[in-house]
Order: sequence, then C-alpha cells, then structure tokens
Amino acid sequence: MAISAAAPESISSGESGSAHLRLAHSVLSPGAQFADEASFHRWWKEVGDRDRTRVRRVAFDELERWRRDPATGDLGHESGKFFTVHGLDVRLPGAPVEHWQQPIISQPEVGILGLLVKEFDGVLHCLMQAKIEPGNAAGMQLSPTVQATRSNYTRVHGGNPVPYLDYFRDAPPHQVIADVRQSEQGAWFARKRNRNMVVEASGDVELGDRFCWLTLGQVYRLLAVEDLINMDARTVLSCLPLAGQGLSGALPARHRFAAALAASCTPDSGALHPTAEVLSWITEQRTRHEVHTARAPLDSLAGWRYDAERVAHESGLFFSVIGVNVLSEGREVRQWCQPMIEPSHQGLNAFLVRDFGGVLHALVHARVEPGYLDVAELAPTVQCTVENYTLLPDSARPPFLDDVLDAAPERIRYDTVLSEEGGRFHQARNRYVVVETERDADHPDYRWVALHQLTGLLRHSHYVNVQARTLTACLHSLTAADGSAFGAVGAF
Amino acid sequence: MAISAAAPESISSGESGSAHLRLAHSVLSPGAQFADEASFHRWWKEVGDRDRTRVRRVAFDELERWRRDPATGDLGHESGKFFTVHGLDVRLPGAPVEHWQQPIISQPEVGILGLLVKEFDGVLHCLMQAKIEPGNAAGMQLSPTVQATRSNYTRVHGGNPVPYLDYFRDAPPHQVIADVRQSEQGAWFARKRNRNMVVEASGDVELGDRFCWLTLGQVYRLLAVEDLINMDARTVLSCLPLAGQGLSGALPARHRFAAALAASCTPDSGALHPTAEVLSWITEQRTRHEVHTARAPLDSLAGWRYDAERVAHESGLFFSVIGVNVLSEGREVRQWCQPMIEPSHQGLNAFLVRDFGGVLHALVHARVEPGYLDVAELAPTVQCTVENYTLLPDSARPPFLDDVLDAAPERIRYDTVLSEEGGRFHQARNRYVVVETERDADHPDYRWVALHQLTGLLRHSHYVNVQARTLTACLHSLTAADGSAFGAVGAF
Repeated sequence: MAISAAAPESISSGESGSAHLRLAHSVLSPGAQFADEASFHRWWKEVGDRDRTRVRRVAFDELERWRRDPATGDLGHESGKFFTVHGLDVRLPGAPVEHWQQPIISQPEVGILGLLVKEFDGVLHCLMQAKIEPGNAAGMQLSPTVQATRSNYTRVHGGNPVPYLDYFRDAPPHQVIADVRQSEQGAWFARKRNRNMVVEASGDVELGDRFCWLTLGQVYRLLAVEDLINMDARTVLSCLPLAGQGLSGALPARHRFAAALAASCTPDSGALHPTAEVLSWITEQRTRHEVHTARAPLDSLAGWRYDAERVAHESGLFFSVIGVNVLSEGREVRQWCQPMIEPSHQGLNAFLVRDFGGVLHALVHARVEPGYLDVAELAPTVQCTVENYTLLPDSARPPFLDDVLDAAPERIRYDTVLSEEGGRFHQARNRYVVVETERDADHPDYRWVALHQLTGLLRHSHYVNVQARTLTACLHSLTAADGSAFGAVGAF
Repeated sequence: MAISAAAPESISSGESGSAHLRLAHSVLSPGAQFADEASFHRWWKEVGDRDRTRVRRVAFDELERWRRDPATGDLGHESGKFFTVHGLDVRLPGAPVEHWQQPIISQPEVGILGLLVKEFDGVLHCLMQAKIEPGNAAGMQLSPTVQATRSNYTRVHGGNPVPYLDYFRDAPPHQVIADVRQSEQGAWFARKRNRNMVVEASGDVELGDRFCWLTLGQVYRLLAVEDLINMDARTVLSCLPLAGQGLSGALPARHRFAAALAASCTPDSGALHPTAEVLSWITEQRTRHEVHTARAPLDSLAGWRYDAERVAHESGLFFSVIGVNVLSEGREVRQWCQPMIEPSHQGLNAFLVRDFGGVLHALVHARVEPGYLDVAELAPTVQCTVENYTLLPDSARPPFLDDVLDAAPERIRYDTVLSEEGGRFHQARNRYVVVETERDADHPDYRWVALHQLTGLLRHSHYVNVQARTLTACLHSLTAADGSAFGAVGAF
C-alpha cells in the first residue's frame, strides 16, 4: 500500500544557531491512516495476532552459538559480532560508593535507530513499526522505522534485508532532520551508542507489512500507554528539533502549565541559565569527576555469583545476566539464543519541572555512569531503583527522591511505565514521571534547564542520557495532551 | 601594577542558539598598556633578558625522577603524575595505512588553559603571559593567563601557586565566556584534552610580573609573528564566541576578501551547507571509520628503535621520543628532567578558503587520529609533514596538498611558522597557511564550512582539532589586519 505524497514545503530546517522545524502535528487528520485511536488498536491487535514469540530461559551452556570464555567466563557470540558480556571494575573517587565490580554489555558497533517522517496533507507523519523483541513486557511494541545493529544490517545473522534502511544509509535526496550518536544505559552498556536519525522522505513511500503511519500527535498520545512506544522510538523522538513558536499564542491563559511548556519549547523565550553557563557547568562536572574503569573477568567479580543459569549479585539486587532461547512463529519461523540483562526491580525516572518566568524548566542531574564515553551526562532529576538503596549508604540516597514519591496527584503531569530496550534487557520496565514543583534546588550537581536548551544539546552527542531523552519526549508529548488547544494545527 | 576597570556592560553573552559576544578590539587604544608594537617588543625583550633557560639532551637513564618500566620500557614519573610515554598499536580498516605501531604520550588529567579578559575604556584586553617552555623554538612565547596541568595546580611538583588560577576554578562573580574541553595532537597524545576557558574579570586585576594586557587586536597582529603566540593561547583564542555583526558594514566594497571574512563571522549570513547537514556529515564520518587502538610496550614497537637516548622510527621520519634536562635561571632557579617528543621535520597546516555568495568558507577535513576520544575531528584542509610521504603509499598523499604548495603568492592570506606546545614537544614548528581558492572540492571527507559554523562547533568539545583551531584563530586575526577598516571599533 502506498500513500501518495503531499509536497513537503512546509517542513524546512532553518539556519540560525539551532535548526528548528516547522512541523504540523494533529491527533486527527484527514490523511491519517487511523481516524481514531480505536482503529489503531484494531490494527495493532490484528498484527499482534499474526505472530507468537516464546521466550524460554536456558542455562548458559544451552546458548547455541554463544561461547563462555574458559579463562574469564565472558559470554560472546561465536561470530565475534553482536555483543559480549564481561566484567567491569569501577572506581569513582569521592562518590558515595567509591569502588565496585559488575557485569556489563560491550557492543562497540554503532547501530541505526531511524525514523522516517513525511507530510501528508500538511501534517507530519511518522513511519512506525510493530516490533517484537524477546525482552519486551508486552511482547510487541512500536519501534522507529529502522532499528538495526551493524550486525543486523550487514546481515551477519543471515536474516532478511532491513526494510527502509536505504533512506538512512544514503539519505539524499531525502532530507536529514536529525542525525546524532547517543549513549544508552551507562550502567549496563560499556560505551554503547546508537545513531539516532530522523529523515524526511521525498516521493512515495511503500507501506510495508507491520508498519504504519501515525501523526506525531498520535505517537505523542500513545506515549501515555504503558509499554507501547519502545525505548528506541523514544530516543529518536527526543532528537526532533522542535520549536514551540505559535503554540503559546493559541493557548487560553488558564492553561498555565501548557503555556509554560509551549514557551519552554521556544528558544526565544529564554532560560534561567544562559546556555553558555549550562555548557560551562557541564564542562566543570565532566572535569571534576574521575571515572576509572577496567575490564574484569565475568566469573570472578566481587559480590557476584556466577552459576549455570545466571550471574547475579549476592544481595539479589541490581540485575542479573541470564540466557534465553527465543522462538518466533509467524510468516517466518526464527529461533535464536542470547544472553540478556534482567533488572531486579522496576526503576523510577522522574523530572521535577518548574515554571520560571512563564517558561517551564526541568531539573537535570549531571550523572556519572561507568559506561559513558565522557564521564557524565544529563540525567533525570531522579533516576534510581528504590530497592537498591537498602544496600547502599544513606549518603547514596538520591536527592529529590521524596519530592517524586510524595508528590500530590494534581502535581503529576505524566506518569507511565515504559519498557527499556527489549533486545538486550529482559522485562526492564521503568516508571517515568513528570512532577511540577515550586521548590528551590540549590545543588551543585543539578541545574534547571528549559526544554529548548535540551533540544539544542540533543543536536550533539552524549549530552543527554537515554532516560532523560525519554522524559524529554514525554514532555514534548504533553503538548498534544489537550486536543482542543494543541491537536488541531500546532506548528511546533 | 593595577589598571582600574571600566564597567563591563558592553560585553554580554546573548541567548539565541549560539551565544555571541559584542567585543571591541583595537590595535591602538588609549587604555592599552602598549601604545604601539615597538613598546610591546621593548617589554618583551626586557622580560626575556631576565631569565636564561638551558635545555640539554640526556639519556633516558639520566632523567631524574623518571622511571623506565623494566617490562615494557614505558617512561613514567615516579609520582605517577604528569604523563607517561608508552606504545600504541593502531588499526584503521580501509585507510591507506591500515596498521601501525608508534609511541604516544598519555596524560589523562584535564589541565586548564585560561584566558582572563577585561574591558578598559570599552576595548577588550587579554591578560597574556611571557612563558618559557623547554621545547619552544624561541624559548619564550606568549601564553594565555593560566596554563596549568592538574599536577601543576595541585602542586605535585611542589612549585609556586599558579597566578590567576582562582578566576578559572571559582569563576563567579566573574563571567565565563567560553569553557570547553578540547583535544590536542591526536597523533602524539592519547586522548589528551585541556579545558579551554575565557573568563571576563570583574573588578580590579593585579598585573603580575611577566604578564601584560594586550588588546585582542594586538594579539591578532602578533599572530603574524613567527613562534610568538603559543599553541595554548591560539586554542583558547579560537574558542572566543565571536560574531561579525557590524564588521561588514564598515568595509569599503573593494575589500572583497575582508568583506567575505567578516560575513563569515556572522551567523545570519548563512552557509553553503546548513549546520544540520554539517552535523549529519560529522556523524556519518564518525560512524563509518573504525579505529582500534591497544596499548603496546614502548620497547617492542614494530618499526621503532629504542636506544639509550631516543625512541626513533627506523626511517628517521615521523618523530622521536627524547629526554631533556632543563635548567631555568632567573628570579628563581628551577631544574627538572622530562621526556619530550621531537618531530623529524616541520609540518604544514593549511586551510583552503573560498567565497560562496559573499561568505568565506574554509574546507575542513574529517580526520581520524589514533588519540582522538571520538574517531574523527575537523582538521585543516591539509595537515601533513611532506617528508613523511616518501615512506607512505601514493594513495596516502593528502588531497589538496599541491593547491597549497603551488599557491600563487597573491592568493596566500596568512603564512607564518608557529610552535606547538613547548612543554611536551621539542622544537615542533608548523607552517600555518590560509590560501584563497576558486576550486571545487567534491570529496566525501571534506566540507566547506563558514567560520560562524566553526565558532558554533567550538562551543562543544572534540569537534575541531588543535591545528584547525590555530587556523581559526589566524582567520579571526585577519579581521584586524587592516587597521583602518577593522582596528578602530570592530564590534565582532
């Protein structure tokens, strides 16, 4: 099925410091594939019914084509591709916990997370994929158009070609809207990064099986559904160079939060701290903290037990490394084995947000994680798994945690459980929360930043971590929350 | 001596994507410490006569307080601080030379290169230091206000406190104008970076011995003098967030090059490739190239000979590691030993520049060096040591080299030999050249960028390499070349 194209002239990327995008998004649009949310869900169910995926835990010995290094216990694929699981020794002088060891995933290849967008009848649409991954809580989730490791797209696994890949590997004549490498979980991945791309298609685009066109507004609406928009889609969405011009004018004055949110997307509305000051603070944080990491053998990590079926912390906390056997039955039958990381508990990622002079700001934390390429990245105000702190010193308890846990319901602007990457993490679910506050936050490791500042930083690699990118996408999604004010035209 | 302060209100950092700075620079100014260049040179000679520094080559065994690791031959300080010299094994699949080994300096600490600036009578002045370093061709050079390794400023060497350091370690109430970590020579340093800072002082500033206030215009004029403005000063100067507003209007139309240069400093004047496209090209370059490095023992590097006095390449090309004993006699007597890198020949770093629609663009090269933190950085059009290519395959000969070597004299806009860092490199001198061209340059690894795009990238770490930063400062300096048009007021 092909949807014929409208002329793309209303999307243009400007040239004045930060590129911005005049996008139109709507919840309902005459050109939309789905007239309403119910019709999307019917399609979703129909696609989901076609496939069955069975994920079975297996011992490390039963991981076909994977080898356990006899000297170290490290787990690697026989091809030398995909990823390995090894140990890491971490030293953070001055931190509440100054030294520890842990397993970590090493995946040096840079994959592509690509979102193809296109205007139909003046409304921006995203080409989304219904994708099954073994670790997903709900089995199938909405992913970006392309989600491919280098091993995938060079077809080490001997699978089918990756649909739509050429739009991202050889973009012209299509328009590249965002193209940046971003980190992923620095607690679980050693220096992993993926290339986040948004490309606007010119000409007709064939609509493949398991793919659908959603307006950006529809995608934003679906971000409020548990375990639906996958992590890769969220990180790519966060890189959209949105600008809020035109939003705030359309708002009734009583929508104070919505107006401050719209202003926050608009570079002209300013910020509490000028960007030069924010950049200097990041430089200071990255200079002040020292991170020393060294590879260590997986089978002799202090505090970890390595048995036939898992590598787990003695306390039962944090996470385990497990093995799974995946059988996917549908149009084609695929079967494979792989190690995965299984977190012990659900995590919490939250932004405190506050209105300064009519502009909404998020409180970001300069967070050090051992897997980051460059010491620290901007993280949510709170990013933690509460249960883990039973084992850690009181000084390690995250600042502002109680502001989130005790937030009055009327101050909670967003609150949904979303899944992390289902290709590497097994049932990794985090509660994402946005809480409006009026409190001060005078802490040297935290700063209030406007959303347009985050958008500016997201043009560059390694500033904003994957959890904060999800929350950035969630904040953007709230601009579509009120259909009457935002949904209809909403030039970002 | 203290020079009293003018109010700093004419320097302000804006908030609209890229911060810009309304600076005033002049070659002559009533408030300047030096009324003309001759009076600067008199001061320079007077300071230089006070000190004598003697640098003597010594065998590695005679390097007091340095140890040669018996297992590897690696050279390190007994304190474990400062730096080490070890070996590196480099693999660049697909490059003209795919595999080699070499010595490299490892200096993981992030030092501070800090320039203190201040307005006097509405004209921006820089606090420069007359600094002696053992590797300097001319002994003494002009450095930024502060040039300190972490070992320096935490006083591992037991020396005096670093003057003016507090302006950079605890900036408020002073204004931070630039603050970013940048790489240095990726061929000689493993992942070294220094924090480049420009801070505007509020209040009176005591003028120390060996320090002087120069207007930015005077500094730019002195950039045309051989071996005078040192590398650290040049890299900090390149990070000044200049904006060219007001320059072009003041220009007589006949100054076509000058007008295009001024327009190139102005974000509003646009660029051949929108910044989003340039960023995407950088992402592509950094994704496409793979660099694999592994530490190797210094005493068994393929192609290198390690004898009592040097580690040198068998061919006599590239560079050597040597040992020096430094005796500095002046107000205080200091003596120390250290290893240094000595290049075999003078190098060549050149920008081809071209006018596109009245805006000057420089042709940058996405260059891979083994010591970069992130694969590739933007380098000069040509960055090479011509003699080294006698040993390398023809395919390795740099594109555009002949455009520089054969340039007609009237097309050469800048041409001066400048020194690299005299604290680590012995007599490392490079010819820096800017050549105006009208040729096309359709090469996937090269892009034409406007100067304001480089300035925008220089707000962030690791985009522009140290040689291209020098050339950026040199191009900026040409705005001061014509005293009548630029020197007088010149709000950047």
